[in-house]
Amino acid sequence: MWRATILTLYPELFPGPLDASVLGRGASEGHWALEAVNIRDFSDNKYGSIDDTPAGGGAGLIMRADILANAIDSIDRAGRPIIALSPRGTPLTQAQAKALSLGPGLIALCGRFEGIDERLFEARNVEEISIGDFVLAGGEIAAMALIEACVRLLPGVLGSASSLGEESFEDGLLEYPHFTRPREFEGRAIPDVLLSGDHAKIAEWRREKAKEITRTRRPDLFKRFCESGPIRRQNDKDRER
Amino acid sequence: MWRATILTLYPELFPGPLDASVLGRGASEGHWALEAVNIRDFSDNKYGSIDDTPAGGGAGLIMRADILANAIDSIDRAGRPIIALSPRGTPLTQAQAKALSLGPGLIALCGRFEGIDERLFEARNVEEISIGDFVLAGGEIAAMALIEACVRLLPGVLGSASSLGEESFEDGLLEYPHFTRPREFEGRAIPDVLLSGDHAKIAEWRREKAKEITRTRRPDLFKRFCESGPIRRQNDKDRER
Repeated sequence: MWRATILTLYPELFPGPLDASVLGRGASEGHWALEAVNIRDFSDNKYGSIDDTPAGGGAGLIMRADILANAIDSIDRAGRPIIALSPRGTPLTQAQAKALSLGPGLIALCGRFEGIDERLFEARNVEEISIGDFVLAGGEIAAMALIEACVRLLPGVLGSASSLGEESFEDGLLEYPHFTRPREFEGRAIPDVLLSGDHAKIAEWRREKAKEITRTRRPDLFKRFCESGPIRRQNDKDRER
Repeated sequence: MWRATILTLYPELFPGPLDASVLGRGASEGHWALEAVNIRDFSDNKYGSIDDTPAGGGAGLIMRADILANAIDSIDRAGRPIIALSPRGTPLTQAQAKALSLGPGLIALCGRFEGIDERLFEARNVEEISIGDFVLAGGEIAAMALIEACVRLLPGVLGSASSLGEESFEDGLLEYPHFTRPREFEGRAIPDVLLSGDHAKIAEWRREKAKEITRTRRPDLFKRFCESGPIRRQNDKDRER
């Protein structure tokens, strides 16, 4: 079973949103499990503090390496990577979420205050991952995003596996636009092709729209898509035929 | 007061993690407020459904434009942007979080299922924002990340304003490494310069480390930093002097 362990100063926030909908059902059906460990339980003083002032001065407080190391050492790692959520980390991608979902799970370390003593990362082989180029008040919501991205890919968690095949990033492109009832909404009609019943034409239209949206909104992704070699371009041609 | 309104099928998830720590205190002190609106309340049928099958076929269900439009129209927009959280959106940046924090607030639309009928975006001027290149089970956790990124920047929410000045992205760079007690941890010492008491040297060391980390981990950000013109480069020189 895929297991997530969260190291946090706010264990009461978990599972929180990770208990909703398909993820909650997936947990109750035994596809995955979550536990939250309170970092404060590893404090070495009667005040329960786990932080101290930054060496060299500056604002805020730094989470201590020795205390975090003790918290980590209390966990059965079972081959799982330890991931600190931090804007300094490697940006999370769908490919990485998929790779993590194929492993035994993960241990998420949620920073608070100004950050974590740098020595911990090397001493406990902690990887830093970022969910985006913005700053949060702590790692908790970022850990939720990371775990949700992984867990929904686990076998049995989403009802229909086919809905995973056509989503954003699956083929290096953003997803094509969706339409449903009503046929006309405030003077805006569903594109005719989608009502034509011609499945090849519909697939071609969707593929073109996905490329157009990616090119317009994310030139960086589109460039990578175009450079991804003759195999993908051949696949693309096959589909368009 | 800065206001966030969430349109969601899971209103019970809010405020959830947004009620913790500095954000919860900020709300109770009146710096910001959150309300969650249940999209299902705008269903037009006795089953409470708000979705339907995709035009053109395919897996999953699409959230209906007419029902979402009614939900949006029920809200006092008060000049706030409507933001749908979606991997197809523009990637959220710290600059955008800052811009949003300076406005009246935001309305976050949390997609579920396969997505939202495309016609809604134009009909109600809904902007799509992405927190990263990965797919979640719904927009709720992404909305939490967006709101946390904005709210922590509001005046009065973080205790010390100076801690905002030196964090990642503030100057186009990732943050420098932090250290605190103990002086030696498992054979790893705090770098001497940080214990020297020489504030100019410490500032220079931190600046160099921030540049080194950004160059190594995020060549994309470092390139932008280097290209950011003579003004920033001059500032950088001034600091290093």
